[in-house]
Amino acid sequence: MRELIVLGTASQVPTRTRNHNGYFLRWDETGFLFDPGEGTQRQMTFAGVSAGDIHRICVTHFHGDHCFGLPGVFSRLANDKVEHPVHCHFPMSGQPLFDRLCWTWPEYRRRVLREEPAWGERTVLAHESTSGFGRLEAVRLSHGVESYGYRLTEPDGRRMLPDRLAALGVTGPHISELQREGRIELDGETVALEDVSAPRPGQVFAFIMDTRLCDSVYALADHADMLVIESTFLTEDAALGAEHGHLTARQAARVAADCGVRTLVLTHFSQRYPDPAAFEREAREVFDGELYVAEDLMRIPVPKRAP
Amino acid sequence: MRELIVLGTASQVPTRTRNHNGYFLRWDETGFLFDPGEGTQRQMTFAGVSAGDIHRICVTHFHGDHCFGLPGVFSRLANDKVEHPVHCHFPMSGQPLFDRLCWTWPEYRRRVLREEPAWGERTVLAHESTSGFGRLEAVRLSHGVESYGYRLTEPDGRRMLPDRLAALGVTGPHISELQREGRIELDGETVALEDVSAPRPGQVFAFIMDTRLCDSVYALADHADMLVIESTFLTEDAALGAEHGHLTARQAARVAADCGVRTLVLTHFSQRYPDPAAFEREAREVFDGELYVAEDLMRIPVPKRAP
Repeated sequence: MRELIVLGTASQVPTRTRNHNGYFLRWDETGFLFDPGEGTQRQMTFAGVSAGDIHRICVTHFHGDHCFGLPGVFSRLANDKVEHPVHCHFPMSGQPLFDRLCWTWPEYRRRVLREEPAWGERTVLAHESTSGFGRLEAVRLSHGVESYGYRLTEPDGRRMLPDRLAALGVTGPHISELQREGRIELDGETVALEDVSAPRPGQVFAFIMDTRLCDSVYALADHADMLVIESTFLTEDAALGAEHGHLTARQAARVAADCGVRTLVLTHFSQRYPDPAAFEREAREVFDGELYVAEDLMRIPVPKRAP
Repeated sequence: MRELIVLGTASQVPTRTRNHNGYFLRWDETGFLFDPGEGTQRQMTFAGVSAGDIHRICVTHFHGDHCFGLPGVFSRLANDKVEHPVHCHFPMSGQPLFDRLCWTWPEYRRRVLREEPAWGERTVLAHESTSGFGRLEAVRLSHGVESYGYRLTEPDGRRMLPDRLAALGVTGPHISELQREGRIELDGETVALEDVSAPRPGQVFAFIMDTRLCDSVYALADHADMLVIESTFLTEDAALGAEHGHLTARQAARVAADCGVRTLVLTHFSQRYPDPAAFEREAREVFDGELYVAEDLMRIPVPKRAP
């Protein structure tokens, strides 16, 4: 199952209806926790996400609304006696801050891993050939502090074509042999996998938090099946967004439209706007794909693979 | 106005109905925030407590459920541009941990004060003659890490006796002059304040978190008008309480009864008990004063001064 569980949607200041950030992505057997803000531990309880579901924690940057939930998450991992290691990805310059936020459980600290050296503009953090879930990349964003977006890419596969299979008489067990071996002999003829299937691009999930508009935003969002992106402001406050390094709903939606995004999730809203429908209206002016203005505890399925 | 606003009531693990600890005491013009656990910032929003209401932060010890809300509270103090200094009281051995939890706002850090050297078994942190709110003391408790309870004592005053005033013919402006000057001349006779008034003990508020039963618990609770005390376990799990350095509801209520406490507030409940009424039943067996089994966002008035 591939599903996004929204744990929190507020920027800087939480509100009665919006906790600080927190996004749990269930991606088959791997659980990714992105940007756990304060209160994520309890939001997990409300959402039915257990500490043992977490395998990777990805922090975009070390502003409080994106990381103050780390101590609570680590303590929950310790309390729940989670045995598997949890890989943590975060900007290298945040290492001292990260260490400060997980001081309490030295015995657990050994199982919280950060393996990469300093990252470049675009860095592969996990390879599709070895990770079990695909390729995970960090791409440098443009904000007040060192900040990265994340992009998760499933390995490309192939989609069997029923017409071609029928035409060449490939049936039943021959199909699985063909998928496994790449080619088979059938009635004296060689049939290659390419003859009866078409490429099927892997699914792409992209996660973009605090940033001003820059090339990296497009690189991250490119043909994403699901894009989770900050949308702090409305266009009427675009100047504030530029000043503080944030996007407007229109900018975020324009990126999604330009990049061929299928499912767009807007989040990280400023508390200044009482009605979230305004974000939807603004995004709808430029984006006609599937659109979610995130609410806390919303569950959003990653859409089926593109045909 | 003197009022306790309960922000959170869970021990170790928060639940759907209980956030981690957090207690705001409004004591006339001074606001005390005790043991802000994770999520306190947002609980303050639910309770209508603003960052500017906080003047003193008192931390009993540095287990996560009593302090992980500090970064959020500090960030809120900074975001809300609170100008007054906030005095922080916490065990000296926790200074490195405290510093780690308020790393984000160096500019604010200068206004977050801890002035005391290492504390003894019982230490006066603020004097009634100079503090404006009375005397604040820390008393060493018995837990796994260095831990203190807090006791707030209003200066003693005097209560005017209408019968005596009438008998001596003291009326109107003479009363305020007598209160101010201590004695007045009336029709050639000297009237002293003591002749027409009785001592009125100042109000006492006591705050006791994680501890096993020890003399300090009694010293803190002695004749408290309001006692907030941890009640993690029920008697059926008293062995667990002893092992982990916690109290049962019966122990806490027995302390309150033995110490002449007027209003007892039980809190810091283990998530193992689904029905909080069990704490009330157990406490009621030994304590017949005013009793609250705390719930999140409960508001409890400090009772009027004892007659």
